[in-house]
Amino acid sequence: MKFNLRARLTAEFIGSAFLVAAVIGSGIMGERLAGGNVAIALLANTIATGAALVALILTFGPISGAHLNPAVTVADAIEHGITWPDALAYIAVQCAGGAAGAIIAHLMFGLRWYSMSTHPRHGWSLVLSEFVATFGLLSVIWGCSRLRSGAVPFAVASYITAAYWFTASTSFANPAVTIARCLSDTFAGIQPADVPLFIVAQLAGALAATFLFRWLIPNLPTHAAEVLVSH
Amino acid sequence: MKFNLRARLTAEFIGSAFLVAAVIGSGIMGERLAGGNVAIALLANTIATGAALVALILTFGPISGAHLNPAVTVADAIEHGITWPDALAYIAVQCAGGAAGAIIAHLMFGLRWYSMSTHPRHGWSLVLSEFVATFGLLSVIWGCSRLRSGAVPFAVASYITAAYWFTASTSFANPAVTIARCLSDTFAGIQPADVPLFIVAQLAGALAATFLFRWLIPNLPTHAAEVLVSH
Amino acid sequence: MKFNLRARLTAEFIGSAFLVAAVIGSGIMGERLAGGNVAIALLANTIATGAALVALILTFGPISGAHLNPAVTVADAIEHGITWPDALAYIAVQCAGGAAGAIIAHLMFGLRWYSMSTHPRHGWSLVLSEFVATFGLLSVIWGCSRLRSGAVPFAVASYITAAYWFTASTSFANPAVTIARCLSDTFAGIQPADVPLFIVAQLAGALAATFLFRWLIPNLPTHAAEVLVSH
Amino acid sequence: MKFNLRARLTAEFIGSAFLVAAVIGSGIMGERLAGGNVAIALLANTIATGAALVALILTFGPISGAHLNPAVTVADAIEHGITWPDALAYIAVQCAGGAAGAIIAHLMFGLRWYSMSTHPRHGWSLVLSEFVATFGLLSVIWGCSRLRSGAVPFAVASYITAAYWFTASTSFANPAVTIARCLSDTFAGIQPADVPLFIVAQLAGALAATFLFRWLIPNLPTHAAEVLVSH
Repeated sequence: MKFNLRARLTAEFIGSAFLVAAVIGSGIMGERLAGGNVAIALLANTIATGAALVALILTFGPISGAHLNPAVTVADAIEHGITWPDALAYIAVQCAGGAAGAIIAHLMFGLRWYSMSTHPRHGWSLVLSEFVATFGLLSVIWGCSRLRSGAVPFAVASYITAAYWFTASTSFANPAVTIARCLSDTFAGIQPADVPLFIVAQLAGALAATFLFRWLIPNLPTHAAEVLVSH
Repeated sequence: MKFNLRARLTAEFIGSAFLVAAVIGSGIMGERLAGGNVAIALLANTIATGAALVALILTFGPISGAHLNPAVTVADAIEHGITWPDALAYIAVQCAGGAAGAIIAHLMFGLRWYSMSTHPRHGWSLVLSEFVATFGLLSVIWGCSRLRSGAVPFAVASYITAAYWFTASTSFANPAVTIARCLSDTFAGIQPADVPLFIVAQLAGALAATFLFRWLIPNLPTHAAEVLVSH
Repeated sequence: MKFNLRARLTAEFIGSAFLVAAVIGSGIMGERLAGGNVAIALLANTIATGAALVALILTFGPISGAHLNPAVTVADAIEHGITWPDALAYIAVQCAGGAAGAIIAHLMFGLRWYSMSTHPRHGWSLVLSEFVATFGLLSVIWGCSRLRSGAVPFAVASYITAAYWFTASTSFANPAVTIARCLSDTFAGIQPADVPLFIVAQLAGALAATFLFRWLIPNLPTHAAEVLVSH
Repeated sequence: MKFNLRARLTAEFIGSAFLVAAVIGSGIMGERLAGGNVAIALLANTIATGAALVALILTFGPISGAHLNPAVTVADAIEHGITWPDALAYIAVQCAGGAAGAIIAHLMFGLRWYSMSTHPRHGWSLVLSEFVATFGLLSVIWGCSRLRSGAVPFAVASYITAAYWFTASTSFANPAVTIARCLSDTFAGIQPADVPLFIVAQLAGALAATFLFRWLIPNLPTHAAEVLVSH
């Protein structure tokens, strides 16, 4: 079944908004309740994000492919899974949806509708972390969507759950989420000055995994969105 | 396979009772053991609720659709998935089952069989939270039940697990559970005066998601219960 | 595919041993590391038990039905899913396997091979808890094994994960595990004097759920083991 | 679909690197944030490792069988699921990948690229723990891969999640990971002198389970990799 572009963009918008609301909202809740123990706050943040990804990819995957992430959309366009004009529209609504999700999270927790983050996240180890995190994310997506597409929601959610803890950056791995998180001076925030290098590292990781899996699994359909939708 | 109304109502009653017992009981246990760390208590509450939803929807979904939630039943009636007389019967047993679950939870923990909650939960940010929480819940249900019905138990449980943390209200998202929780002056309680606005927000969120998905996925069977049962 | 009785009993023995080792071992580890916070110890205990159940039922379900629990075997015999002589053999090896698991757990943690528990667990609220816990467990098993047998491992594991927290007794729900836990004076132990009432309550809960589901889902195959094996 | 050896070895290398990075990285993060509560650090370590295993086995299982573990590869060679020359190549890249993963984890967290562990892990109770842990792991793999191959990723991940807590050694259960962890003087490390006995115990447990399941499930295809790939 093929959905028209307006439906697909709506799905990407709502899905990205819920994803960012889950990341930022659970960060606020976790920090408020954890009594200063950052590990417990991050555990809550992790569980909420992983569980939200399962639900959102199951819900919106059949409509839009549930990219919810410009790095995924760019990789899919490179592999001819989505046209470049559609990809640009996807990326625009992912960023807009992410910003909307940040605002909704703030309003749900009684905060001002936005606040620029002052949370520093820089240094080469964090940039390497984002490269590794997104390389792994795209590896999981290409490996599963080509060979076991029904497992993608669980594989992606499990991967991000793990990567929150095994990367030093807590694995943003998503340019739209990264931009949205600079609008929130809370637990999950990132100061605007650190955003560009994060995005560069994310795109580089996504491209590296895409080219690796083009070589690893060459003879299979490469249209991620189609595989997801047709499941 | 089609079950008769008496079997379906029994399933809704037992399922709602176990759901509320899980929410209230795990709140009591979590608070007793957590030594004052609210995040740890809520983590236990979250894990118990999410896991209970997986088990209950898998168990009762094939019999009654496992609505366990008047907001779901109303949305399903609007979409002609259940007749209005059946829907009213569903809602009545969901509320009765929820109250029974609260009582059972209290007796299991050696408390008086009921106690009116004095836990205040008001303010516009909490009302917005309930709107968002139920909008998301119904989005997940409509998205999955129309396109991937076998995944509904996991999608709904994952969604609620996340929403416990990313909404400021810990995502009640269910009028029958909300009423039952006002009968319990424990961790999960809500004082009776705050119940009506919660329910209004929940129904508004459910309707908004229902109309959105009617537009997003128009050409598919819209009978939620049937899809769940026939799986 | 049908396995011979010796293979099935071997599966029940090893599965029950691993189940008890998981319950007792993770209790010891959790208590040692949690620094006095009982909620964190119980969270570790819960996650280990739930995860072990997923793995063990997936592994041994196709061989023996993965009852690993005399209450399940008795219920299955009542429903003609297993002959009574086979059921008695199952129960014997479940108890022997459980005791072996307790001993292995002690040896892995450098403790004396057994120690009678001094952990009191009595009072009517705990007895009610065990009735409710086992009623729920058998409801989940009968609901899923008759209508969605592939989901049984996840449904049972999720149910027990929840019931650890929503019952006051942490949901033993298994006579063989209860007996084995009285051999361990550790976090998960139960003093021998409290065992008989636990077992009575568990069997009563199992029977109540079995008769309820015989009425709820009358026209379906009732051979639990067969459904699990043939999956 | 059959992949050539170079693709399969690449999959084993990347998968083993990510597995070790997940184990070591999440150990570093957990310990840094947990404020001295070892149970919380180990909980984070456990969740990250279990979630990583789901993602990695789903991703690389269809390509190489996702052994990621010399004990699994040896067992598979014994059962004629992989030729011995291929098995030796698998083991070499698993060890190399594991070492690479340790180095990447250190660099992501801004540590020196390697450091020999000074974490003592010895005594017969730990050796017994590794025997039991690997016996259980191979039991899960043989039980599931022969009878329910699609469930292997979830069964293995669930098993390891449980075994982190129910064995006294936190269940290394993998010679390549054990070697890699001696290169890291962090939470997950093991001092080099304790590695040999761990590996002996792991291989003994793997062999014991392999011979047991050869008897338990005799008439089925025994080629683990093939079953996984053909799923």
